[in-house]
Amino acid sequence: MKAARLHSYEEDHLHLDDVPEPDLQDPRDVIVRIGGAGLCRTDLHIIEGIWKDIAEPELPYTLGHENAGWVEEVGDGVRSVAPGDAVIVHPLMTCGVCLGCRRGEDMYCENSLFPGLNGEGGFANFLRTSERSLIKLDERLDPKDVAPFADAGITAYRAAKKAASRLDPGSRCVVIGVGGLGHVGVQVLRALCPTTIIAVDTSDESLRLAGELGADELVKSDDNVVEKVKELSDGRGVDAVIDFVAEHGTTEQGPPMLVQGGRYYVVGYGGRVDLAAIDVIFNEIEVIGSLVGNYVELLELMELAAQGKVELRAQTYGLDQINEAIDDFMAGQIHGRGVIVPDGRPA
Amino acid sequence: MKAARLHSYEEDHLHLDDVPEPDLQDPRDVIVRIGGAGLCRTDLHIIEGIWKDIAEPELPYTLGHENAGWVEEVGDGVRSVAPGDAVIVHPLMTCGVCLGCRRGEDMYCENSLFPGLNGEGGFANFLRTSERSLIKLDERLDPKDVAPFADAGITAYRAAKKAASRLDPGSRCVVIGVGGLGHVGVQVLRALCPTTIIAVDTSDESLRLAGELGADELVKSDDNVVEKVKELSDGRGVDAVIDFVAEHGTTEQGPPMLVQGGRYYVVGYGGRVDLAAIDVIFNEIEVIGSLVGNYVELLELMELAAQGKVELRAQTYGLDQINEAIDDFMAGQIHGRGVIVPDGRPA
Amino acid sequence: MKAARLHSYEEDHLHLDDVPEPDLQDPRDVIVRIGGAGLCRTDLHIIEGIWKDIAEPELPYTLGHENAGWVEEVGDGVRSVAPGDAVIVHPLMTCGVCLGCRRGEDMYCENSLFPGLNGEGGFANFLRTSERSLIKLDERLDPKDVAPFADAGITAYRAAKKAASRLDPGSRCVVIGVGGLGHVGVQVLRALCPTTIIAVDTSDESLRLAGELGADELVKSDDNVVEKVKELSDGRGVDAVIDFVAEHGTTEQGPPMLVQGGRYYVVGYGGRVDLAAIDVIFNEIEVIGSLVGNYVELLELMELAAQGKVELRAQTYGLDQINEAIDDFMAGQIHGRGVIVPDGRPA
Amino acid sequence: MKAARLHSYEEDHLHLDDVPEPDLQDPRDVIVRIGGAGLCRTDLHIIEGIWKDIAEPELPYTLGHENAGWVEEVGDGVRSVAPGDAVIVHPLMTCGVCLGCRRGEDMYCENSLFPGLNGEGGFANFLRTSERSLIKLDERLDPKDVAPFADAGITAYRAAKKAASRLDPGSRCVVIGVGGLGHVGVQVLRALCPTTIIAVDTSDESLRLAGELGADELVKSDDNVVEKVKELSDGRGVDAVIDFVAEHGTTEQGPPMLVQGGRYYVVGYGGRVDLAAIDVIFNEIEVIGSLVGNYVELLELMELAAQGKVELRAQTYGLDQINEAIDDFMAGQIHGRGVIVPDGRPA
Repeated sequence: MKAARLHSYEEDHLHLDDVPEPDLQDPRDVIVRIGGAGLCRTDLHIIEGIWKDIAEPELPYTLGHENAGWVEEVGDGVRSVAPGDAVIVHPLMTCGVCLGCRRGEDMYCENSLFPGLNGEGGFANFLRTSERSLIKLDERLDPKDVAPFADAGITAYRAAKKAASRLDPGSRCVVIGVGGLGHVGVQVLRALCPTTIIAVDTSDESLRLAGELGADELVKSDDNVVEKVKELSDGRGVDAVIDFVAEHGTTEQGPPMLVQGGRYYVVGYGGRVDLAAIDVIFNEIEVIGSLVGNYVELLELMELAAQGKVELRAQTYGLDQINEAIDDFMAGQIHGRGVIVPDGRPA
Repeated sequence: MKAARLHSYEEDHLHLDDVPEPDLQDPRDVIVRIGGAGLCRTDLHIIEGIWKDIAEPELPYTLGHENAGWVEEVGDGVRSVAPGDAVIVHPLMTCGVCLGCRRGEDMYCENSLFPGLNGEGGFANFLRTSERSLIKLDERLDPKDVAPFADAGITAYRAAKKAASRLDPGSRCVVIGVGGLGHVGVQVLRALCPTTIIAVDTSDESLRLAGELGADELVKSDDNVVEKVKELSDGRGVDAVIDFVAEHGTTEQGPPMLVQGGRYYVVGYGGRVDLAAIDVIFNEIEVIGSLVGNYVELLELMELAAQGKVELRAQTYGLDQINEAIDDFMAGQIHGRGVIVPDGRPA
Repeated sequence: MKAARLHSYEEDHLHLDDVPEPDLQDPRDVIVRIGGAGLCRTDLHIIEGIWKDIAEPELPYTLGHENAGWVEEVGDGVRSVAPGDAVIVHPLMTCGVCLGCRRGEDMYCENSLFPGLNGEGGFANFLRTSERSLIKLDERLDPKDVAPFADAGITAYRAAKKAASRLDPGSRCVVIGVGGLGHVGVQVLRALCPTTIIAVDTSDESLRLAGELGADELVKSDDNVVEKVKELSDGRGVDAVIDFVAEHGTTEQGPPMLVQGGRYYVVGYGGRVDLAAIDVIFNEIEVIGSLVGNYVELLELMELAAQGKVELRAQTYGLDQINEAIDDFMAGQIHGRGVIVPDGRPA
Repeated sequence: MKAARLHSYEEDHLHLDDVPEPDLQDPRDVIVRIGGAGLCRTDLHIIEGIWKDIAEPELPYTLGHENAGWVEEVGDGVRSVAPGDAVIVHPLMTCGVCLGCRRGEDMYCENSLFPGLNGEGGFANFLRTSERSLIKLDERLDPKDVAPFADAGITAYRAAKKAASRLDPGSRCVVIGVGGLGHVGVQVLRALCPTTIIAVDTSDESLRLAGELGADELVKSDDNVVEKVKELSDGRGVDAVIDFVAEHGTTEQGPPMLVQGGRYYVVGYGGRVDLAAIDVIFNEIEVIGSLVGNYVELLELMELAAQGKVELRAQTYGLDQINEAIDDFMAGQIHGRGVIVPDGRPA
């Protein structure tokens, strides 16, 4: 089959190689025919070498960790899916036995593999994963339309759900950054709770999108962004800020926007959260990190997608256009999310 | 009556003045005969002028915000207490009408007065407060033994209760700083949950006290304190850290002690909490500020005190020894908490 | 002023009497000029004598416990409202001092008065209440349009909010009875969470209304109602049932509709909840009673109303038409809620 | 090997048969050498035929669902345990893939097997189970001392933990029935929260045991039991009742003991919970069913056991004494719990 692989951290491109198709290695393994694989900023970071010493993959290897498609083949022990089923793939292969797994927190699994990061990923015709990672798609959903939910989507979902659980009528929530994650975050907030959503971004186009997707107030980010947000909240501050950027100064803006008892959810990264303890205490704020969502959260997000309450804005490329997609992404020319769509659907 | 008043920020002492007794100004006001008034580090900070521009009290005025005693006189509208009742005084006089009050969060009251901070306090024979601030004492409790619970106590209680609500059997919680607040915190944790308590302090004496009060592990703080804590938690880290110090470097030690998904509770202040967003995300940690407890929390703490599950270590001084108490406190010679006990009990 | 008063439990009507206007009795009292007063089934029950021995009011007295209007006069101690303010009135006058009040649960107040039930109510030109019961209306809201929210509305809101807090995407919630309370319940569920709402009623018109207000599935109640609901939930059962009827057999239908771990919220009354312990255990269900909402819940509901997310269907009558309204109500000819609107708006 | 098997529902005894040792059937299967197997009232019910049509086991088969011992052999896919490990066995073999499993609620597994109920159980030398059911024992614990925790223990634990999460200082909790489950329940409450525990039982000996294990108040059950409990709670009622009996009239006593907003936890079965909806509403009570605990709850309970905070009162029998144990149990002559201990420990 074809696979887009990274050969060297010295290059800024992937190679479209002919490689053997993956095979079943465990009775609970499943081979998925890729219907769509999202291109994520993390892929760019992998190519740049940032993840080299964290994930330690052996080169060359295939990238792609936001995958959806159709079940092609299943191991003997697989009971919950069958060949032909349309599925989305939770990015982590988990053991199901450790305490993290038993608590339902897949990302805390002590024996996990992250295909596309530290194993063979989904920029290819086929992907090996395990039964525990698969969710059957509602018939209203097509793999290529939902693939980026597998990572970007559930990351936004998890943060927005954490926030929503404490946002009652009359509350206000700021969303900083309405990009690939943030535009999902706005929709999830809109679906899960009646808070007043205040979208903050440096781009007019992103703000326009936020408005279309359900944001109540749109704030162009500049030096006065904290004051602008305060004005929109009777001068008192907002109940929650979800920071999908967390760099370029947003980590200094988010916390001062909060009312007493408010929460600052950190989803993006790159910057530092630096606060005087006295301010943490006096305002009694919380800083809450949020990682990739778990399996149940992906299931819930797919439910919202099937109901039409959350949709992805995406742009598709063939597998042989992978480097074009990467170039477009680097040039800021992908609006919403880029999705790689290999040839071939199930017979 | 006698009152220990601050005359000038240029001095480091209070003056024992003859002043008129306070009178009822509202139908729900109550005059309390002071049985004990705790001496708090905040009192030292007030004398130093740190609070001058925050609380903006008019000099001279009477300090003392950790008060307990007996009801002396009540306004027409008071129904829940009567002269002679032994009471502890929640430090804030609240309106009972604003949203903060309606939610039970007294410290969020929008129309509050803080006697001893921005109004006449309890280093005196009598104090004016309001019905809403009073809790009747169980007959097993004496005002002078419980006064410091009114501020130091509920601050420790609130943080420990927040932590305890998420500490299941098998979890571990670090308490940094076993002083006036921390020694209450250890006892509250012990009473509220079965977590393994790891006490961290620079003083052997404080650690010995922590052990007596229920801590399971005692760790002398030094440059290797993070490693020592990790060793005590299978190398994985602890579920919660309550930082009663939050200066002198503890804010750099607390967060790295945490397991994935762990919580860092900030109670002390003076330092900065400075974290890379990537670490907040990857470890999915939470930084949770915690302020003075609310009325219901004081009620719960008094219940624990009445049951003998939480006790204060204290040292008493007469009202005319107030400056001696201040000197001892500054010299680090008060073990536990200093309590000012004016002459006179109810007839 | 005019007031519609009950003279005797032997009659089935109220008398329109000339009575003195109420006066301020406490510094925190407020006189409200009635803009609208909802007619509630409880009023019929009072007239029938059902409440005689529970509330023990002294006859004659004025009914009406769902009140909204404008502040006419305030006591010396009132700070949060001023004459002319449009307000809705929480039905309970509470002490603000007892433990129930301190926890924010107004209905648990140990020293309360319920005007219209055991004190002078709002079927009159003016009503005496206290500052703690008042919420200022958003300028988009008119007293006569919101009055029934004061009791029927918050009762529905409280139950729906309890349910919504545990209803994730993919869940299903049955609402039994889409009448005065239920039609608010459907809208609150719609506003607070993304659950699939299954409305159950015996009336086609009520079901049509439920559909308009956001219900996803409409089920005509009959002997097979449990099976119909099960079919709509993959044969597994629903996550929650809110029973706004709780008589005429619904208490036998609700619990068997539940999936393992499901919750049955009881809001209506008249029937019995009778379950074999083995079924409670095996299915691990919960039966949750729900009473009138508290002050904060009324505040949240008014927020939803101001945002246009919840609206009341109502029919208005003049104060002199009170007995006509009662007759219509008894004859089942009020669609939605009847509201009494006395003459006179503030100058 | 030897196995105590049920041959016919016409008999009231088991047969000690020679049967083949179980073998591995799945890569994640584990063979456990039984160190102790608790005798449960459910075993008596199975023999009486009550479970015949629910669990539908094929006769003859081996009973015993409260198992602990040592790992004897593991399948290829097993990573978390190894031969020789001392383990306790969660009673359910679960799939790890369905939604119930993914949420951590093992008892909601859609593809489970319950050895000893609908499969070969642990009254034998060896038991086949799966890796997901095993928890390694702390070195301070011996299999025969903990076996009954596997079912009776976690059932009590789950109910007590649910209750404890809402029992603050000053609250009161009634435990009805201090037998096999209840004596664990009292200890778990004692370990998890500072509530005042009121033990209710018809037996003086059980009450004495409750007192030893941490109950604060002991109430002999009779016709006035509700009044006695009310007297112990200032006439207001208690915050929670955990009913480990739920027959012989306790279901009529539990709910009236509650304060407004109180919770009634049903763990035992046999009786009916029959309440007027008006009482459910007015008192705003909750009736909460509680089933066998999940894997994480068993882990937490074993932690409490290792710390010495919860201990079982038990009486041991050899495997060849199984019918003697059954006779003693039926005759009410087992104090605490009966445990079957087959010969043979690992070499």
